[in-house]
Amino acid sequence: MTEATNAVLIGKKPIMNYVLACITNFHAGAKEVSIKARGRSISRAIDVAEVVRHRFLPDAKIKRISIGTDQFLPMDSDEGTQGGTNVSTIEITLTR
Amino acid sequence: MTEATNAVLIGKKPIMNYVLACITNFHAGAKEVSIKARGRSISRAIDVAEVVRHRFLPDAKIKRISIGTDQFLPMDSDEGTQGGTNVSTIEITLTR
Repeated sequence: MTEATNAVLIGKKPIMNYVLACITNFHAGAKEVSIKARGRSISRAIDVAEVVRHRFLPDAKIKRISIGTDQFLPMDSDEGTQGGTNVSTIEITLTR
Repeated sequence: MTEATNAVLIGKKPIMNYVLACITNFHAGAKEVSIKARGRSISRAIDVAEVVRHRFLPDAKIKRISIGTDQFLPMDSDEGTQGGTNVSTIEITLTR
């Protein structure tokens, strides 16, 4: 990750909130905005990237998409979940 | 898309079904397997790619991840959904 990257973390809010956050970052002078999400929010991250690109900033390009896995250690180990649970992550870097 | 690519379409089944489909494709001699998903299934597509890579085929690499938008035309146009609904798509190409 570069130091000039602004990250937008995707949660459960409506996608337009995150779209606005991305656009605000770009308008503030950011060269790159990184959209990050985990688990079920991943599809919303892609929605955000697509809306930003197609509706608001046609000159924005997808620079990089990377996926990964975050591991959570189990809080109570008597449930038989050995080694914790895994959750997939995505990071979409937009540039203009 | 190349002609030598085998596609695995992600739906609502447990992810291990799709993981098995990917591994079967590779074992049948495929050089590339393309994991495709739409909408809420996108996070499952990433789960599948991560499980294939980390648990079963450590030599598999992510060649390309592309995202896009599919547009559906409205079935009944009296609901005020102008121009249909958009759904995000992902395609993850694994290679080994």
